[in-house]
Amino acid sequence: MTDAQAPAPESPAVRAVRERVAALHAELVRYQLVVWTGGNISGRVPGEDLFVIKPSGVDYDDLAPENMILCTLDGEVVPGSLGSERSPSSDTAAHAFVYRAMPEVGGVVHTHSTYATAWAARAEPIPCAITAMADEFGGDIPVGPFAIIGDDSIGRGIVQTLSGHRSRAVLMQNHGVFTIGSDARDAVKAAVMAEDVARTMHIARQGGDIVPIPQEAIDSLFDRYQNVYGQNPEGSIH
Amino acid sequence: MTDAQAPAPESPAVRAVRERVAALHAELVRYQLVVWTGGNISGRVPGEDLFVIKPSGVDYDDLAPENMILCTLDGEVVPGSLGSERSPSSDTAAHAFVYRAMPEVGGVVHTHSTYATAWAARAEPIPCAITAMADEFGGDIPVGPFAIIGDDSIGRGIVQTLSGHRSRAVLMQNHGVFTIGSDARDAVKAAVMAEDVARTMHIARQGGDIVPIPQEAIDSLFDRYQNVYGQNPEGSIH
Amino acid sequence: MTDAQAPAPESPAVRAVRERVAALHAELVRYQLVVWTGGNISGRVPGEDLFVIKPSGVDYDDLAPENMILCTLDGEVVPGSLGSERSPSSDTAAHAFVYRAMPEVGGVVHTHSTYATAWAARAEPIPCAITAMADEFGGDIPVGPFAIIGDDSIGRGIVQTLSGHRSRAVLMQNHGVFTIGSDARDAVKAAVMAEDVARTMHIARQGGDIVPIPQEAIDSLFDRYQNVYGQNPEGSIH
Amino acid sequence: MTDAQAPAPESPAVRAVRERVAALHAELVRYQLVVWTGGNISGRVPGEDLFVIKPSGVDYDDLAPENMILCTLDGEVVPGSLGSERSPSSDTAAHAFVYRAMPEVGGVVHTHSTYATAWAARAEPIPCAITAMADEFGGDIPVGPFAIIGDDSIGRGIVQTLSGHRSRAVLMQNHGVFTIGSDARDAVKAAVMAEDVARTMHIARQGGDIVPIPQEAIDSLFDRYQNVYGQNPEGSIH
Repeated sequence: MTDAQAPAPESPAVRAVRERVAALHAELVRYQLVVWTGGNISGRVPGEDLFVIKPSGVDYDDLAPENMILCTLDGEVVPGSLGSERSPSSDTAAHAFVYRAMPEVGGVVHTHSTYATAWAARAEPIPCAITAMADEFGGDIPVGPFAIIGDDSIGRGIVQTLSGHRSRAVLMQNHGVFTIGSDARDAVKAAVMAEDVARTMHIARQGGDIVPIPQEAIDSLFDRYQNVYGQNPEGSIH
Repeated sequence: MTDAQAPAPESPAVRAVRERVAALHAELVRYQLVVWTGGNISGRVPGEDLFVIKPSGVDYDDLAPENMILCTLDGEVVPGSLGSERSPSSDTAAHAFVYRAMPEVGGVVHTHSTYATAWAARAEPIPCAITAMADEFGGDIPVGPFAIIGDDSIGRGIVQTLSGHRSRAVLMQNHGVFTIGSDARDAVKAAVMAEDVARTMHIARQGGDIVPIPQEAIDSLFDRYQNVYGQNPEGSIH
Repeated sequence: MTDAQAPAPESPAVRAVRERVAALHAELVRYQLVVWTGGNISGRVPGEDLFVIKPSGVDYDDLAPENMILCTLDGEVVPGSLGSERSPSSDTAAHAFVYRAMPEVGGVVHTHSTYATAWAARAEPIPCAITAMADEFGGDIPVGPFAIIGDDSIGRGIVQTLSGHRSRAVLMQNHGVFTIGSDARDAVKAAVMAEDVARTMHIARQGGDIVPIPQEAIDSLFDRYQNVYGQNPEGSIH
Repeated sequence: MTDAQAPAPESPAVRAVRERVAALHAELVRYQLVVWTGGNISGRVPGEDLFVIKPSGVDYDDLAPENMILCTLDGEVVPGSLGSERSPSSDTAAHAFVYRAMPEVGGVVHTHSTYATAWAARAEPIPCAITAMADEFGGDIPVGPFAIIGDDSIGRGIVQTLSGHRSRAVLMQNHGVFTIGSDARDAVKAAVMAEDVARTMHIARQGGDIVPIPQEAIDSLFDRYQNVYGQNPEGSIH
């Protein structure tokens, strides 16, 4: 590294998000939501117009805080920042679009997890017939449009589908699942739960007719879970 | 911890149940019955009107004897007890109801394991067509009512369904599975076996018609297994 | 252990089989063929009328050469032998029946592995439509009779079904799968492969009609595999 | 090893391929594409008319650079080479055929991974209805002929199916999947992705009708992915 310029110094907030985003990728592996180098997590840097995202095409075993990529909200790599010699995830533009359009979002996750993607290949919303799904998503998980990578159409499709919707997960038609959260960990939780309910509802329906949950019960479950559950009910994005 | 009051001293029995209940949660992870912070195990303290249960919304990796929550049989956290600064599992009221109504029960487990929950989403009992199921559950695994969290209705549904029934597992409609046992380990075994037979019977039926087991053979298998199997046939709750 | 009688000294052959049988149980866990304490492996002691089998109801994590149980070919525990204070697997009588009736068999495995048991719950043989199945089993995996534990009927059903059959695996109706081999490792391989082909053929058929393999191709594959494959083509039992 | 002849010295290129091919086998285990000793990976030695392949019938835990087998492009073991006391994979002739016929291929992988083999048992191509599949395979994954091991028919079937095809994966009817790549790692990636899309598309179709992706979108996705994705777009074989 003799002639390379030393990376620009970073704020403690940036460093903290680098650490958290890098570490959270292990959860995608643990829950088998990804294979090879697929999938990606990003996290907004609180108080700065920046976010941190996974590099493109790097093995999960090799992810570390220092190779996460720091981007502006336009989806451009911050020049001279740590790790900036690599390309960011090819889904960076979609993440950036979400951060610009939804200021309440602090984390975004994208995977091709098997069961969620199977519903997406049929462009079929996942119906809400288990209480864990009512808790977490407040009803069905909706389907967003078919959109080709390369412009804003994926990001726009995510935002149009999730804005004003209870669900933090959207099935992008023929593609996979995107989830949002108050921070990166919250978005990862949504990705884990989305695959879990996608699997359970697929298997439930393979066996015969499911029993719907009455709408008022879904409303009541969602309301309680967003406000009461857990040790520190953080301000949810919904 | 300078001004915090030291937790009240606990009996050896409480400490032993804390250790066992904390450790048993690893079995839920090993058998992939839970994701994220879902699922919970409790164990009755022998000789005291108390039980120990998982805290709410805490990572499985972070569970330890000292953060398990000690509750009275009314489902209230024992004030000043070790770990009492956290909230107990949101299913604590259901566990407490079971301990009050069924004095022979020493452990309760709740999960949203995939295949059991899929049967529950159809409100369909799991039919008994494999000998391991006859051994363990003595017949079908029954379905309990749809019940919303927040009052006694889940606990009451479990007790009404399992009282006088051979099965130690109940599928709560649109929700998941609760199991009971002579102690926490016995209830965990029932949770593991319930998912195993839910999966096997689902797959069996997907492939065509299953062959039923004659009732007298089910009775004979259940009787033998409850009385002969294993190194130390503990007094079963059935 | 002050007043306990020291266990009788054992031959090197017995000790070797204890070690191999204990270690092979880890393969059942690795390939997820078993849950909790279910499943069992036994191995014949070469040159002695004895076999070694798993104890009943003991955790897989706790299995070790010294707690394997040494039995006569009548299925009786050898008095005073190492580990003889425990009960042998509840399937010991079935293993013993196989060793008495089939002198070429050196190992027996029993599991309730998910897909094999699903076919067994329909009493349906697994059809041979993949070359790995032709290699390993020489055709369909057959179904044995429904038989209740407690007498010789399971062992007799295994022997009647597999005698003169190419397959080293039999689906016992409504129960699970038994496999035999030239030694314990060969029987474990058959158990692993039986579940693998049970799963693949189930999934194949769920998607539509399978293409059969012509009988002469099955014959040719089976013949080659039994005689050529691997580093040390051991005398197969078929 | 007193009277054994020391193995012939090898070029650094051979040693490097031995290390990479041995290590890559762990990916087949990680993604559960293989059971027991099934499956195999080979890698061409750049600049020499040689390739390195897995030995036959050896445990995955025991694979190491020094027991990989060095072969000529005729599929013959190089006499006196390191590891040459063992037999190479029984699929060696097929790998050799591919290396002779397709000079752009630097790696070949063969597995009986569950979902890919299930499509192969129906002789049904995997339809392309998810963008990850368009990226990686450029359309459907095709089916090759039924071919019996023992002559060139498997290798010829692979080459005839994949020559001029975008897909780096072929489902060999009633058998399993072969993948090719610019090097061994690229072929392993194709094997991992082939099973992933085989599984997702199977599950998608079990739930109802899939939505096709328009051909021009498939073309655009494939073109972008082959040229832009990742940190170092290596010269792909397609």
